[in-house]
Amino acid sequence: MSLLGKVVIAQGGGPTHVINQSLVGTILESRKFSQVTKIYGALNGVEGIVNENFMDLSHETSSNLEQIAKTPAAALLSTREKPDNKYCAEVFKVLKAHDVRYFFYIGGNDSSNTLKIVKDNALKENYDFRVVHIPKTIDNDLVLNDHTPGYGSAARFVAQAFMGINLDNRSLGGVYIGIVMGRHTGFLAAAASAGKIYPDDGPHLIYLPEKIFDIDKFLINVKEVYDRYGRCVIALSEGIQDKNGIAIATKFAKSLEKDAHGNIHLEGNALGIFLADEIKKKLNIKRVRMDTFGYLQRSFLENASDVDQREAREVGEKAAQFALWDNLSGSVAIKRIGDYSVNYTLEKIRDISGKTKLMPDEFINKAGNNVTDKFYFYVRPLLGSNFPSVSRLRAPFVTKILKKQDLSR
Amino acid sequence: MSLLGKVVIAQGGGPTHVINQSLVGTILESRKFSQVTKIYGALNGVEGIVNENFMDLSHETSSNLEQIAKTPAAALLSTREKPDNKYCAEVFKVLKAHDVRYFFYIGGNDSSNTLKIVKDNALKENYDFRVVHIPKTIDNDLVLNDHTPGYGSAARFVAQAFMGINLDNRSLGGVYIGIVMGRHTGFLAAAASAGKIYPDDGPHLIYLPEKIFDIDKFLINVKEVYDRYGRCVIALSEGIQDKNGIAIATKFAKSLEKDAHGNIHLEGNALGIFLADEIKKKLNIKRVRMDTFGYLQRSFLENASDVDQREAREVGEKAAQFALWDNLSGSVAIKRIGDYSVNYTLEKIRDISGKTKLMPDEFINKAGNNVTDKFYFYVRPLLGSNFPSVSRLRAPFVTKILKKQDLSR
Repeated sequence: MSLLGKVVIAQGGGPTHVINQSLVGTILESRKFSQVTKIYGALNGVEGIVNENFMDLSHETSSNLEQIAKTPAAALLSTREKPDNKYCAEVFKVLKAHDVRYFFYIGGNDSSNTLKIVKDNALKENYDFRVVHIPKTIDNDLVLNDHTPGYGSAARFVAQAFMGINLDNRSLGGVYIGIVMGRHTGFLAAAASAGKIYPDDGPHLIYLPEKIFDIDKFLINVKEVYDRYGRCVIALSEGIQDKNGIAIATKFAKSLEKDAHGNIHLEGNALGIFLADEIKKKLNIKRVRMDTFGYLQRSFLENASDVDQREAREVGEKAAQFALWDNLSGSVAIKRIGDYSVNYTLEKIRDISGKTKLMPDEFINKAGNNVTDKFYFYVRPLLGSNFPSVSRLRAPFVTKILKKQDLSR
Repeated sequence: MSLLGKVVIAQGGGPTHVINQSLVGTILESRKFSQVTKIYGALNGVEGIVNENFMDLSHETSSNLEQIAKTPAAALLSTREKPDNKYCAEVFKVLKAHDVRYFFYIGGNDSSNTLKIVKDNALKENYDFRVVHIPKTIDNDLVLNDHTPGYGSAARFVAQAFMGINLDNRSLGGVYIGIVMGRHTGFLAAAASAGKIYPDDGPHLIYLPEKIFDIDKFLINVKEVYDRYGRCVIALSEGIQDKNGIAIATKFAKSLEKDAHGNIHLEGNALGIFLADEIKKKLNIKRVRMDTFGYLQRSFLENASDVDQREAREVGEKAAQFALWDNLSGSVAIKRIGDYSVNYTLEKIRDISGKTKLMPDEFINKAGNNVTDKFYFYVRPLLGSNFPSVSRLRAPFVTKILKKQDLSR
């Protein structure tokens, strides 16, 4: 007999382009099951649960839900809270009081642990209860997943951004540094390479947290590229680390800002300014520019990958199906099949939470300053269809009449 | 009788999304005139002319030209050179040697002056010669133009960027500062407001070079918004000035970087870090983020305004028509007619060059920290069709059972 009761769904951690696809997938699929008495949304993740801030999502039109599915960032709002055992006991107390039997939490590895503790509380009280973790993270760092919802769209943004920046940099020359998100893993920065067309296209150099960052080697690399092309485009992960495994960007923080998970805020801007100044000073290059892409990477409208949208919707639907058809708890995971399709499995939450997937060595070149073709084949399908292209003039040069000396560069 | 000879076309200054639309418009229209013996493109603007680096654009396929029209940044590459009289004499010497009778230059007000001096050289030598300036600038600061090609697409990028950032900021709270391009004028930063839907949507504050920036007032404004909404999104023009008319961002430059036009490089990153630190320190707000949008504003693929694309194409076509049908020199200008259409006129170059159009007072609110509805009606048609929308959940709240105290924010 199926378990009668309410569904609660919540969103945690940094938002993505497609996190609301998962939300809407879960809601619409849950609505089909007669054992579901109501579907509640908790505002601000676990904060909304302990404060009983629930919206009754049974009262949403399908049309508005479809609009919300296309809207970036967390429609239920998010949280950076890391609930301890006491907090999780409160969470469970509220869920039980509202006769909640199914708890779906959309989040990364930092927050999946919450589900495990809440589930343990239910077991202790012999309360029949299902929890399903729905994956999302632009960092793409969940183990047992080929990739995670949110990554494809962020990767598409970064790839397209560097295509445009490469063209701009080609027009006027100089050095450009784009700082890309990614605390421990370089998957997102690596995607900067995915839009390259011509052999001299940037980014010419890519630096990832997986390889030790050495400022002297960096300057040698930049000089080499600049001497060859008269310009250099660099994609730099904000999480690059020194030889002691310390994120270099944390060294520029005036005040140490830690979130509840112990993550120190990365001062990507200050890191970029420092590296730009080093290039100006030590390589004597005048025109050096840097930008941080920041929130744009996970929220820029109308630029989601359609593959990512579809998969984010499906992991939400699958979560509802695993809990409501199969009466199971766990973490939904994406497995790649062929080139290119996916299947969804349900993994044990303890096998996912607290673990970090890094870029494998075969995705990074020997020098540690670029990616390999293997990475390109990995990332390309995730960017979605209709990926843009650009072109160059290919007209022949005109014979010179005055045969003048080169007065400029 | 029409003037027989070659056409030279070049691109100068900072590139835009649609500068190649103007290039292609000029090329394709010029091809139709029998008095045009060849169409040359000069590489890197005037630099390519003095060095005789010409491509013979007669040898381009229409299909590739259409691809290039959709490609951001200068297909002929650009320059920051500011030619003096001697340099312009060289430019003229080369053009005359190649029997060039029509010179089209796509650029902003910094570079339009070049055309005037080159034309003066031709007059002195009694050389029959037409020059047409084709407007482009994301800053939107050319006088006698309702707006300039390039602005609409950059404005669309900035408006869409702030729509996503507003959603992200709403998910997790805190203060966000986005640094927008614009040396003397705030048109682009002002466009950050164009995607607002709900009354509490950001950007909540917009700072423009047209109004004196006062750090104390700024902090009071941020505190007011933060106290009301628990968050604050700020659009800040990199060109904001102190009461002496000095761009504040120049004060953070470690080394003074001036271009040939005397423009000092604006250290938008350092400005943003400074303001973020002030907010953290003086308002005791922990979560403060800032990004510089940089080149993304003028080069992000697949996001051009279709209105901007069309108009950029048309100013190129009109330039060819004014020179080749009407035998005229001048600067093509865009006039707004009705709501919304445009017409093109040919203005005297001396009435355009060296002048800067600022945001009129009626576009800025009294407090100098936001824009008016009048600005919204001005900018809206320039963003193009299919401008995206977003949605929020509107489900009712659930009655609390445990009536607990608020344990968090």
